Amino acid sequence: MNLIVEQGNTSTKVAVYAEGKLVASFVYKGFDKKKIAPLFDVYPLDKGIYSTVSDVDEELIAYLNERLSCFIFFDNEVKLPITIKYKTPQTLGKDRIAAVVGAYYVQPNRNILVIDAGTCITYEILEASGAYIGGNISPGMTTRFKALNDYTKKLPLLDEREEVPLWGTCTEDAIRAGVVNGIVFEMDGYIDTVKELYSDVLVFLTGGHSFYFESRLKNSIFADINLVLTGLNRILEYNVEN
Amino acid sequence: MNLIVEQGNTSTKVAVYAEGKLVASFVYKGFDKKKIAPLFDVYPLDKGIYSTVSDVDEELIAYLNERLSCFIFFDNEVKLPITIKYKTPQTLGKDRIAAVVGAYYVQPNRNILVIDAGTCITYEILEASGAYIGGNISPGMTTRFKALNDYTKKLPLLDEREEVPLWGTCTEDAIRAGVVNGIVFEMDGYIDTVKELYSDVLVFLTGGHSFYFESRLKNSIFADINLVLTGLNRILEYNVEN
Repeated sequence: MNLIVEQGNTSTKVAVYAEGKLVASFVYKGFDKKKIAPLFDVYPLDKGIYSTVSDVDEELIAYLNERLSCFIFFDNEVKLPITIKYKTPQTLGKDRIAAVVGAYYVQPNRNILVIDAGTCITYEILEASGAYIGGNISPGMTTRFKALNDYTKKLPLLDEREEVPLWGTCTEDAIRAGVVNGIVFEMDGYIDTVKELYSDVLVFLTGGHSFYFESRLKNSIFADINLVLTGLNRILEYNVEN
Repeated sequence: MNLIVEQGNTSTKVAVYAEGKLVASFVYKGFDKKKIAPLFDVYPLDKGIYSTVSDVDEELIAYLNERLSCFIFFDNEVKLPITIKYKTPQTLGKDRIAAVVGAYYVQPNRNILVIDAGTCITYEILEASGAYIGGNISPGMTTRFKALNDYTKKLPLLDEREEVPLWGTCTEDAIRAGVVNGIVFEMDGYIDTVKELYSDVLVFLTGGHSFYFESRLKNSIFADINLVLTGLNRILEYNVEN
């Protein structure tokens, strides 16, 4: 079985895959190798991949190298099942690559827009040929709520609610409606623009806030919260095969 | 002549108005009453208004009370030439009220959407009857650039450029395109939505980034960088008249 460790800006996801399918997944706010040890007692883990967009955990790398018969640290040397048309592939976030690989694995040979709604919201374009042609980064929902509080004198720190009006009639609603509706308009704006360029495009929405936004968009999308994990598992298998 | 002092989250604007027209305006990063004193030597200032969304400068209030024959500190007691339909008018930002009053003074008896692009981006709806019905707050352009750097481990601090691609093909372009295109989609999304509700709506764009976004929107708008100052001058005159 495969062990996937994906370290983000605010949390770390750990998943177990068997034969291309997710068997179990866990999310940790603070994370170190001790959190992983019990998984070796439960699952027959033999292969693994570790990806990070934060500081590299060298102790974790040493531990996984020791425990797994095949371990890959996702760096710039790792082979990919897609082509990267990016001027600076060495600085392209590993989570962004993994999300696109995951989408292309689920829907191969299709033009794809991947929206990943986490600490940041990333938008990635992959053409049907398997060429990743670029993408954008904007602040995620929680990041926007924090920024309104941190960079102003008087605005409170809020979070999202299920019910969001079109217009706020109090400061709390004005912030919630401002952050949420702004992101909805942003996502739908990208989808509309991409549809003009690729009429058959498939849109994937992933990341911690994918289900929150899925029902709010005017456009139809596939919400798949595990696209980055699926992509990392695919990258692991691809490197084992090759 | 009228003295207008408008203290925002990142800078303070000072303006001189005569007969409803802007005579001079100044922007200060750091601000105190000493910056204003020379203006009294140049302009025959007799009336003034001070508005803040930051800490109240009590020394400035005392100074302006002494120097001007008629001085108004813009608090919740000040009379307004529009009706506020807001559940919590006491926490409605004075800059937001002033922007709407300014737009309604320039284009009276029209349905109006005011977009103010500063530290925050605010969206305000005023109906033709003069009723302000609500509005939203989202992070401004500079705030978004700062947030991407502050709340992630690896993303650099950037600012806007004149040329912005649709898709980034390096991290810098991905961030610039992500922030700028996201705001453009957000603004156009609001304008499209408001046009469905009020087919004859006029859209005003104000704030420090109004000219930056004016040419990027697909919708036609009026860019007026001084709408808040114009609104504060109108509020001052309205309170003098009544």
